[in-house]
Amino acid sequence: MIHTDLCIIGAGPVGLFAVFEAGLLKMRCHLVDALPQVGGQLSEIYPHKPIYDIPGYPEIKAQELVDNLMAQIKPFDPGFTLGERVENLQKQEDGSFIISTSDKTEIHCKAVVIAGGLGCFEPRKPDIQNLELFEGKGVSYMVKNPEVYRDKKIILAGGGDSALDWTIFLANIAKEVTLIHRGDTFRGAPDSAEKVFQLAEMGKINLVLSSHLTKIDGNQHLEEVHIVGKDKEERILKTDYLIPLFGLSPKLGPIAEWGLNIEKSAISVNTEDYSTNVERIYAIGDINTYPGKLKLILSGFHEAALMVQSAFKFVYPDQKLSFKYTTVYGVNSF
Amino acid sequence: MIHTDLCIIGAGPVGLFAVFEAGLLKMRCHLVDALPQVGGQLSEIYPHKPIYDIPGYPEIKAQELVDNLMAQIKPFDPGFTLGERVENLQKQEDGSFIISTSDKTEIHCKAVVIAGGLGCFEPRKPDIQNLELFEGKGVSYMVKNPEVYRDKKIILAGGGDSALDWTIFLANIAKEVTLIHRGDTFRGAPDSAEKVFQLAEMGKINLVLSSHLTKIDGNQHLEEVHIVGKDKEERILKTDYLIPLFGLSPKLGPIAEWGLNIEKSAISVNTEDYSTNVERIYAIGDINTYPGKLKLILSGFHEAALMVQSAFKFVYPDQKLSFKYTTVYGVNSF
Ligand SMILES: Cc1cc2nc3c(=O)[nH]c(=O)nc-3n(C[C@H](O)[C@H](O)[C@H](O)COP(=O)(O)OP(=O)(O)OC[C@H]3O[C@@H](n4cnc5c(N)ncnc54)[C@H](O)[C@@H]3O)c2cc1C
Ligand SMILES: Cc1cc2nc3c(=O)[nH]c(=O)nc-3n(C[C@H](O)[C@H](O)[C@H](O)COP(=O)(O)OP(=O)(O)OC[C@H]3O[C@@H](n4cnc5c(N)ncnc54)[C@H](O)[C@@H]3O)c2cc1C
Repeated sequence: MIHTDLCIIGAGPVGLFAVFEAGLLKMRCHLVDALPQVGGQLSEIYPHKPIYDIPGYPEIKAQELVDNLMAQIKPFDPGFTLGERVENLQKQEDGSFIISTSDKTEIHCKAVVIAGGLGCFEPRKPDIQNLELFEGKGVSYMVKNPEVYRDKKIILAGGGDSALDWTIFLANIAKEVTLIHRGDTFRGAPDSAEKVFQLAEMGKINLVLSSHLTKIDGNQHLEEVHIVGKDKEERILKTDYLIPLFGLSPKLGPIAEWGLNIEKSAISVNTEDYSTNVERIYAIGDINTYPGKLKLILSGFHEAALMVQSAFKFVYPDQKLSFKYTTVYGVNSF
Repeated sequence: MIHTDLCIIGAGPVGLFAVFEAGLLKMRCHLVDALPQVGGQLSEIYPHKPIYDIPGYPEIKAQELVDNLMAQIKPFDPGFTLGERVENLQKQEDGSFIISTSDKTEIHCKAVVIAGGLGCFEPRKPDIQNLELFEGKGVSYMVKNPEVYRDKKIILAGGGDSALDWTIFLANIAKEVTLIHRGDTFRGAPDSAEKVFQLAEMGKINLVLSSHLTKIDGNQHLEEVHIVGKDKEERILKTDYLIPLFGLSPKLGPIAEWGLNIEKSAISVNTEDYSTNVERIYAIGDINTYPGKLKLILSGFHEAALMVQSAFKFVYPDQKLSFKYTTVYGVNSF
């Protein structure tokens, strides 16, 4: 069991900055995110796009902002559980909580901060016969640990950045990589697409265009993938793994069952401290709603700053909080 | 008369960022500040100190943040009236306002944004006989335009950074510069103090330590300054100008008389849009108060973003506002 002061659900920009604000008040944090990397929408959806409304940055690439936030919270050394979805919340007798994830990781904390953005990104599943039968048995929708694929035969499917990036990356690790794409041009970054075409020409990967998956099969584990091309003929490819990468779509998910007041798929909060209707549970960033709410990164930062002032009383019930400027008192790690 | 959409009182970090948020919604801004430079507390009190809690900046010097904000708002080309204090507000029949300053500048606007921080920085006035008689007639408490002092005899008084910095700067402009200081060491930056001692040794300025001013005199204009040293003897120095630099202390000032709800010397606002009790008047940044308020720069940024959404209806009463991400729509100047 992991023990911490604040368990932060969601490692998007707002969850990350909450670690900093909590750290100033000497509260430790553990972050959980269903995605295998930090940064939320910024890293998942638009890492290379510029943002113009981060105050003090006339322009900053989304991933650069995430990297800077990681540097900013480094002194406070938060814990991370990535690639696992938070599913359950159990209130303890002393008021604290135990949070558990899809992989049964348990985190004991004194307060919970939901910074879940638009919710958990759930993979968009293609319509393929038998697909769900082989989930965890050769089929996965994201690459958590590339080492799993070392010296294996793998098939990726999709035409966006993830499909291109993982094809390029896994070409050096797997025994055989095949990329299947419905179209004959890619939606992803032009230089990644270029690279994929080069790898195919060099014979380092198999590129199967204008084709789609219809069915998968196997015994205990995935063994074959059926595809159909322009000619309408079915072909069968042997493989150890299939990784369909058709994007992610967000869902509030299990958090919706925790008894929190939900309005327009968001958690309603009190703007005094961004607390929910359940004591010791806060909601900040895109996941909350209140009169005037804008789904802006800078608003989540403000919400984090006010939230920690309130969470403090559950972590240090006997201490009085005094407000201090970082310029005057600096940033002290523990 | 200056015409604008939003008149922003105070060009601190929060007033500056409000120009950006207003600009995204195609609203023009004019900023007024009593200080001769932009940046509010950051430029006036701690320009060279690092701030650690600006999200995305593990560390940034206060003046650098101000410079970056100026770069960020450049596309929207705001107007500036610096070195003038806002004093009066006159409501017009159509709901708009005319704002006027200490120097009688008039600004006509559709909504007013008070971003006045801790209030107007008023000079701390030393206890000197006849001082107020010669204000504007040889006595001033800040240097707005150094050219006024070219080839004149001037006396500065004080022991902090402003007194040191202006002594060094004016040594090259004035005919004769004298610095009078009550102590014999300086509170200002050690290298500035060093430089002042050097200038004195080189005969470029007169340095009078352990002495204080007792009285000033003249005819229509200031002519002489009386000082007393350790030996308790009074000496009379001839001069054209006296610039007492004993620091600034903030006062809410004339804004306190505008019929706004004031609580603990701050303006109380509605957190939905940071509006005050008077329609078309908003208050953001250190000058406002609401449940949970923290006097943080990042909170003022959030307040600015929500405020503009509401002010929009007074500038474009017939248009519907749609919320857009800068990443997707960019930053367009007019
Ligand atoms: C294309 C695009 C452009 C944008 N441009 C701008 C812009 O210019 N300016 C701006 O301010 N904003 C912009 N935004 C919005 C901005 O990205 C969001 O406001 C911001 O990402 C919100 O941050 P967050 O930390 O609240 O949530 P998110 O970034 O959504 O992160 C939430 C994280 O929580 C995780 N999570 C959710 N539920 C669970 C669970 N049960 N278990 C584990 N993990 C969970 C998710 O996996 C996710 O990583 C843009 C968004 C998009 C899509
Ligand atoms: C030493 C120190 C360290 C700090 N450290 C931090 C920190 O680490 N992090 C943080 O977030 N904050 C910090 N702060 C606080 C931060 O500086 C303020 O929150 C910030 O300056 C508020 O910005 P503002 O734009 O609201 O107001 P201000 O910066 O106060 O600017 C207001 C401006 O309005 C002008 N004004 C007021 N009334 C009038 C009028 N009637 N007419 C014309 N002009 C007027 C003033 O001249 C002033 O320039 C610190 C403050 C100090 C003093």
